[in-house]
Amino acid sequence: MKLKIAVLVALAMSGLYLPAVAQSTDSVMLRKIFDEALVNGKCYENLRYLCKKIGPRLSGSAGAAKSVQWSKTLMESYGFDKVYLQEVMVPHWERGQKEQGFIVTGNKRVPVALAALGMSVSTPATGITAPVVELRSLKELEALGAEKIKGRIVFFNRPFDNRFIETGSAYGTAGDQRNAGPGMAAKYGAVAVIVRSLTAAIDDFPHTGGTNYGNNPKIPAAAISTIAANKLSAMLKKSNGQPVKFFLKTNCRTLPDVLSYNVIGEIKGSDNSNKYITVGGHLDSWDLAEGAHDDGTGVMQSAEVLRVFKAIAYKPKNNIRAVFFMNEENGHKGGIKYAEQAKADKEEHIAAIETDEGGFTPRGFSFERATPAFLTNINKQWKKLLEPYETDRLVAGGGGTDIGPLKESHPGIQLIGFRPDSQRYFDIHHTPNDVFENVNKRELELGAASIASLVYLIDQHGLSF
Amino acid sequence: MKLKIAVLVALAMSGLYLPAVAQSTDSVMLRKIFDEALVNGKCYENLRYLCKKIGPRLSGSAGAAKSVQWSKTLMESYGFDKVYLQEVMVPHWERGQKEQGFIVTGNKRVPVALAALGMSVSTPATGITAPVVELRSLKELEALGAEKIKGRIVFFNRPFDNRFIETGSAYGTAGDQRNAGPGMAAKYGAVAVIVRSLTAAIDDFPHTGGTNYGNNPKIPAAAISTIAANKLSAMLKKSNGQPVKFFLKTNCRTLPDVLSYNVIGEIKGSDNSNKYITVGGHLDSWDLAEGAHDDGTGVMQSAEVLRVFKAIAYKPKNNIRAVFFMNEENGHKGGIKYAEQAKADKEEHIAAIETDEGGFTPRGFSFERATPAFLTNINKQWKKLLEPYETDRLVAGGGGTDIGPLKESHPGIQLIGFRPDSQRYFDIHHTPNDVFENVNKRELELGAASIASLVYLIDQHGLSF
Repeated sequence: MKLKIAVLVALAMSGLYLPAVAQSTDSVMLRKIFDEALVNGKCYENLRYLCKKIGPRLSGSAGAAKSVQWSKTLMESYGFDKVYLQEVMVPHWERGQKEQGFIVTGNKRVPVALAALGMSVSTPATGITAPVVELRSLKELEALGAEKIKGRIVFFNRPFDNRFIETGSAYGTAGDQRNAGPGMAAKYGAVAVIVRSLTAAIDDFPHTGGTNYGNNPKIPAAAISTIAANKLSAMLKKSNGQPVKFFLKTNCRTLPDVLSYNVIGEIKGSDNSNKYITVGGHLDSWDLAEGAHDDGTGVMQSAEVLRVFKAIAYKPKNNIRAVFFMNEENGHKGGIKYAEQAKADKEEHIAAIETDEGGFTPRGFSFERATPAFLTNINKQWKKLLEPYETDRLVAGGGGTDIGPLKESHPGIQLIGFRPDSQRYFDIHHTPNDVFENVNKRELELGAASIASLVYLIDQHGLSF
Repeated sequence: MKLKIAVLVALAMSGLYLPAVAQSTDSVMLRKIFDEALVNGKCYENLRYLCKKIGPRLSGSAGAAKSVQWSKTLMESYGFDKVYLQEVMVPHWERGQKEQGFIVTGNKRVPVALAALGMSVSTPATGITAPVVELRSLKELEALGAEKIKGRIVFFNRPFDNRFIETGSAYGTAGDQRNAGPGMAAKYGAVAVIVRSLTAAIDDFPHTGGTNYGNNPKIPAAAISTIAANKLSAMLKKSNGQPVKFFLKTNCRTLPDVLSYNVIGEIKGSDNSNKYITVGGHLDSWDLAEGAHDDGTGVMQSAEVLRVFKAIAYKPKNNIRAVFFMNEENGHKGGIKYAEQAKADKEEHIAAIETDEGGFTPRGFSFERATPAFLTNINKQWKKLLEPYETDRLVAGGGGTDIGPLKESHPGIQLIGFRPDSQRYFDIHHTPNDVFENVNKRELELGAASIASLVYLIDQHGLSF
């Protein structure tokens, strides 16, 4: 008991706790937010519509265009103060016909699950066949050099490191194989690249995702399933130096850029007519499924934040915006445009929160500009308020791709990432499994309420910790 | 910064932090435990076998008998110091043929998804048809009394209260309808009871579970799906006083008690030959599916705790036991027997941890004997160690059904409940959906590692907070 008293005294002396009345008002408001989202929540049924009636919505596709119009109508139906489209030119990449992949040894062809990486170039119509060289890293590629790479298909096969507790870290450290691997392999003369799907799951569907050639030559690049990767690796080990070849045929193409839109809804602030808090996710999705967790959940949660505020009659001090960004997956053009426009319009931005890690049970938030003092103080002030909802992990970390450009345009801004439970995300991310059925209603709603709670606290108290 | 220093001074003065060396040893051990469980984990494949090769294992069934023998062989294969069966007589209830249920209005019969409650008596072979009276609570039943209940089928239809953040609380507060409802309705002359399935999900399969008539007469009792419950309720509202009837036919029976077993594996302690830490779940399951999350995950995690200790060559001070309890679902006989035997053998029990809330991402643990001082101090000591694994919510709360009887037999014991994320549990609990495919490998393994970590800390430092 002595300790407890000592700590309480220290805290009381520090003056960092809000006065009892303010604490109590905040608690009541958070409870109202959660009750509204859990009892009258709309984001789950909205997500059902987006997934089932619209479906895939890669930038430039008919689905993307349809989703823009529907999203605008949806936000208008909630009576937000302002709902509008923000023009943005986006890349238009198409997968084309389903791809083919085979492991080829002698006369045997073993079919494997394969999908072209986003933005990659296509193979010739006859496909590409070449000997495979298996690598675990870009370093190994450099060590082998052009002599051993030229004319071959590079197979990047470094698996997720399962020791990471948050799967995003495993994704982050394996991701260079997909992002930079194809361009670098091209530099050394590879004719194509196949990449082990970025997932801890041992499954038989390919996990797509974008690649970025940079200034390197462009060669066809595709993901293969982890089961296929294990099979190919085993065959290479057993081959005793006999060449194991791979055949792939992809049919993708990049068309001219297309006019598309960020969809923006806004509740006007009562006090600060030029100050903004943004909450957003991305409306575009990969083409293989419905973009449910990536990132239908994020946009539907963002709209839900504003809807909940209206439903409980909360009048924010600052302008609160829900932004459905376009083109996160293969270009980030929507995020770039949003920051440019905000700067051109001389808007002041306090904070932006991105929800793009799936609609799973909330755990907390990460803050990009997080000094030790900031973390200590924000935890002292707000952790107790968020703890009853188990969304109280306030840590240092990234905001998100869409809000990233605001860092340069608005140096004072705090960028915040919503952090739900990460364990299931990379089972379904960028795969045919990213469908509505894999979203849990309560997990989605708890996330929306968590984000609304943080927006409320920032709106009331600012972020000057 | 002033606050931080003040708090640190207070903490340092309190002497509650472990010396730096001990902290560091503990951190290293926890990291080893997690690495072993996440990289070389066996519980997921063991669970696959239990679910797919054995399947349902209600007490007294062939599946239960098979699971006992397999579990013993499994633990023996890991070379634990002692593996044995503990005899226990258990009830033997059988569902029999699939049940039938219809809403009956005039000449119309609307089929509904229905399953008899565990331990309930059967309808006559011709079924039961009677007018329905819809109630929200046992209080309403008492208020109506025998006059309005006699000869009717009572329909308990109070839904989950979605405002609870942890779904276990919603289950707890709705559960009286299933547990006590049938017996109480029988007391007032009802001829049968149908209960809205205990779930927040709006789905079309019945969620079974046990009922307990107490000293009341026994009448047939069944769960209906939440979709069926909503349909029936809507039809009652629209009926304008015209009787809406319900037909049900169940085919269950209770046979004589059967000899079964708790399955126990043990690693001997190096220092304390008569002191025990127990970790357990229950091996029996409902008959409608594979008992994956309820509670295949719990028993497989319990064995994994001991396996991990052996794999990392950890020699505990105290005896560590993994107990696969029999008959949690419809009688608790295994838990009762374990406590009786432990008392008869004059064993000292430090703590027992139960894992019976599903194999989801760990969040922490609840402690039954938790004074404010205990909670403050255990959090001061151990929260930082568990925080990197996000399993650091150390709160007051229940242990579990199987370990419950140890409270009376061993008054000094601490009973602990493993608390994973609760959002999805009641979507699948007691339904045909409780299958292996709904368990995530990493979530399961993280849970096993969390439990092993807590057992390690208790073994090293005790629980005298």
